[in-house]
Amino acid sequence: MRATMIHAPGDIRFEQRPDPRITEPADAIVRTVATCVCGSDLWSYRGINPVGDPHPMGHEYVGVVEEAGRDVDTVRPGQLVIGSFIASDNTCPHCRYGFQTACMRREAMTTCQAEYIRIPQAGGTLVAVPGDPDPALLPSLLTLSDVMGTGWYAAVAAQVKPGGTVAVVGDGAVGLCGVLAAKELGADRIIAMSRHHDRQKLALDFGATDLVTERGDEGVARIMDLTHGVGADSVLECVGTAESSAQARRATRPGGSVGFVGLPHGVEIDGGDLFGSMVGLRGGPAPVRRFLPDLIDRVLSGRMAPGKVFDLTLPLSEVAEAYRAMDERRAIKVLLQP
Amino acid sequence: MRATMIHAPGDIRFEQRPDPRITEPADAIVRTVATCVCGSDLWSYRGINPVGDPHPMGHEYVGVVEEAGRDVDTVRPGQLVIGSFIASDNTCPHCRYGFQTACMRREAMTTCQAEYIRIPQAGGTLVAVPGDPDPALLPSLLTLSDVMGTGWYAAVAAQVKPGGTVAVVGDGAVGLCGVLAAKELGADRIIAMSRHHDRQKLALDFGATDLVTERGDEGVARIMDLTHGVGADSVLECVGTAESSAQARRATRPGGSVGFVGLPHGVEIDGGDLFGSMVGLRGGPAPVRRFLPDLIDRVLSGRMAPGKVFDLTLPLSEVAEAYRAMDERRAIKVLLQP
Repeated sequence: MRATMIHAPGDIRFEQRPDPRITEPADAIVRTVATCVCGSDLWSYRGINPVGDPHPMGHEYVGVVEEAGRDVDTVRPGQLVIGSFIASDNTCPHCRYGFQTACMRREAMTTCQAEYIRIPQAGGTLVAVPGDPDPALLPSLLTLSDVMGTGWYAAVAAQVKPGGTVAVVGDGAVGLCGVLAAKELGADRIIAMSRHHDRQKLALDFGATDLVTERGDEGVARIMDLTHGVGADSVLECVGTAESSAQARRATRPGGSVGFVGLPHGVEIDGGDLFGSMVGLRGGPAPVRRFLPDLIDRVLSGRMAPGKVFDLTLPLSEVAEAYRAMDERRAIKVLLQP
Repeated sequence: MRATMIHAPGDIRFEQRPDPRITEPADAIVRTVATCVCGSDLWSYRGINPVGDPHPMGHEYVGVVEEAGRDVDTVRPGQLVIGSFIASDNTCPHCRYGFQTACMRREAMTTCQAEYIRIPQAGGTLVAVPGDPDPALLPSLLTLSDVMGTGWYAAVAAQVKPGGTVAVVGDGAVGLCGVLAAKELGADRIIAMSRHHDRQKLALDFGATDLVTERGDEGVARIMDLTHGVGADSVLECVGTAESSAQARRATRPGGSVGFVGLPHGVEIDGGDLFGSMVGLRGGPAPVRRFLPDLIDRVLSGRMAPGKVFDLTLPLSEVAEAYRAMDERRAIKVLLQP
């Protein structure tokens, strides 16, 4: 098969690789129907994370089961399936508690920008899409593998409730999906922090009621103005810098909650400040698997169309151009078709 | 009247002071029936917090309304009342959200180890105790003013649920009340971390199912053993040091929650570690006012007797000895009667 490899920062190649095989009875092999590039893939691409030896890339996928190991009893060959960026058995205590990203048998998915993918713990990891979905829904289904599941978790962790006031820090694909999640969870007011015209437009389309272009102290002041000095009930932190993290906490009302899904870089939280704020915090890699059945329903029923975050579609063979387009901010997110 | 004043570290005096008067229409004057010494009062007593000029002490009280300002319409003279250590109007947006300690008109109570107390925002602050309660219930009612309300908030912030596994870090009066709160909220298993025999005994009496005497890494390891490698669903952090804070987070399962009510001293939380742990955090000064009506019911009905945390009762005139007894750990908590 052919698969995406990174050889060095900026050096993405689509090249011949051995076909993946079932190595454990819980494995399955999936033929990729759609995959994509994640914002976090750019860390290696930009050399922020060291690349090391050439290695495969990609952790988001929708595909068709080609072959299933003898222990896989929840999906079968021929089914269209989605899985999270973390494989999980869905039976251990952490999975049953709804935190499949802490599964005792978890494995990170790292080879998904490819024609075929080996899925560990496939019975726990994969969720079959019922029926014969309209191909037009594939982009939306693909987002459930990571960005939409992560935006959803941010909203759940921030305890978004019907009638609530929500602020979303970060206008990348995850932040935009967070806006959509807040809308679906019944928020009355959704303040999207964005300074890019195309992303503002999508935020409004996803349900944002207010746009704030300011950042830092000014951004917090704007949210305080918009909430009559109270602060937001729930803030979704979808960036991960020290500045965005502080901004999220300061924009939250006393007793409100921050859900943080941007991987923290240099974030230190002062215990005394957090105490004084009475703000609740919960973050982490999103337990996407918990949400998959519900989110698949919401996409199939037409309630939500998160696939709009893909503003460029390319053949998988042009994956190098997909990375360039995202790196140069010519695209929010690029869908790849084998 | 006579009231408690601190003149310097270790120098507590019970002395003549002007009677408090109504200065605002929302004020009331309460005749103290019972008050007490708080662990946090020892910070000044021990010179950890600077004392500065001589000033009154005390923030916990049960009393009888002597006089009410013209804007006070929820309590009337003659009623037995309890209030929190923070006065609040109970009508502003933060109060209505259940976080009265962030009230837009909040005032810290600081003069309660006295024969009479001026209560600001009395209509919002005070809750009348219905009926003519048995005097034997006064110690339990007094705890609702702070320690029991704070232990309760720790359990609520840590999302204690029926059937859950809870660990309590800290065996002071607040930690012990946290054990009782976890029991009342339906926890199945309550692990109390305590190395003092008298406190262990009270923890067991309040509903602890397991005692852990180890601290730090060993304490965490013991909790992991007791929970089959999973961690506790909810951890109540009732100390506030860097060590106890880290211990609480590390003893919590992925997706579990820490409620922290020990005022943090030197606590820094690494955003990346918190992300990886998937642990939720919420702390702060307890919005005791939110819980008062429910907790008064639980005491009057005999469901819970948090007053057992008082292991010494003295006349208010012997307040200096009360501070000494707590400073020297001869008493968990001292009740004072005018």
